[in-house]
Amino acid sequence: MDLRVDLVTLGVADVDAATAFYADRLGVEPALRVPGQVTFLRAGGGRLLALYGAAALAADAGRAVPFTLAHNVGSEAEVDGVVGAMVAAGATVLAPATRAEWGGYHAHVADPDGFVWEIAHNPAYRVDDDGTVHIG
Amino acid sequence: MDLRVDLVTLGVADVDAATAFYADRLGVEPALRVPGQVTFLRAGGGRLLALYGAAALAADAGRAVPFTLAHNVGSEAEVDGVVGAMVAAGATVLAPATRAEWGGYHAHVADPDGFVWEIAHNPAYRVDDDGTVHIG
Repeated sequence: MDLRVDLVTLGVADVDAATAFYADRLGVEPALRVPGQVTFLRAGGGRLLALYGAAALAADAGRAVPFTLAHNVGSEAEVDGVVGAMVAAGATVLAPATRAEWGGYHAHVADPDGFVWEIAHNPAYRVDDDGTVHIG
Repeated sequence: MDLRVDLVTLGVADVDAATAFYADRLGVEPALRVPGQVTFLRAGGGRLLALYGAAALAADAGRAVPFTLAHNVGSEAEVDGVVGAMVAAGATVLAPATRAEWGGYHAHVADPDGFVWEIAHNPAYRVDDDGTVHIG
């Protein structure tokens, strides 16, 4: 299986404060910035680092977690397929696949150590041939 | 600043058990596997997911952490430069830059939320033009 880390989401205390550290002071380029809600930072070819509120992340993931790893796929059916394969291998579904308010479809699944993957189809997510990521 | 997520390291209870889940049962391709110590899984173009013992990760990172994000650079001087820039922006050094037993040079730095970055120069790490990563 081709399990990619496309996005790492950090559950932060304050999205704007975390954004000030990474984007404003350190100069990491945002791909999308929604003040008070989420910032997606460019983190190398084809991947992003998301700064997201810890409470919102817990609500999505089905439990309080410091971070999640996201694997993006091309369709809702592929989300279901990857989740099924992970569960068959010994993972646990924390939040079943559901349509998200941002227009996609995603599930949260914990590996045997409790590390949480978001398996997602996001129609607004696109990676150019040169690795530039578009989101939202 | 171009802060990349090149490697995500998960601190797992048992490296071989975690490897059995990801590589053997789920079929994710290892780039390097050192039984009982560390497994590097291919996680998409240019990046890796490392399964590493939680105690060993805590020893490297200077505190117990569930995971680290690694940014790889091309020289020891660049490690020092990135660490300096992060500290100037408000990060905290947890483990100062040091030569590692695996032949590289790395430091561990916490962002203001406590998320830990490994800033590393690893002479054995190379990414081909097609995104294939070589390590060790």
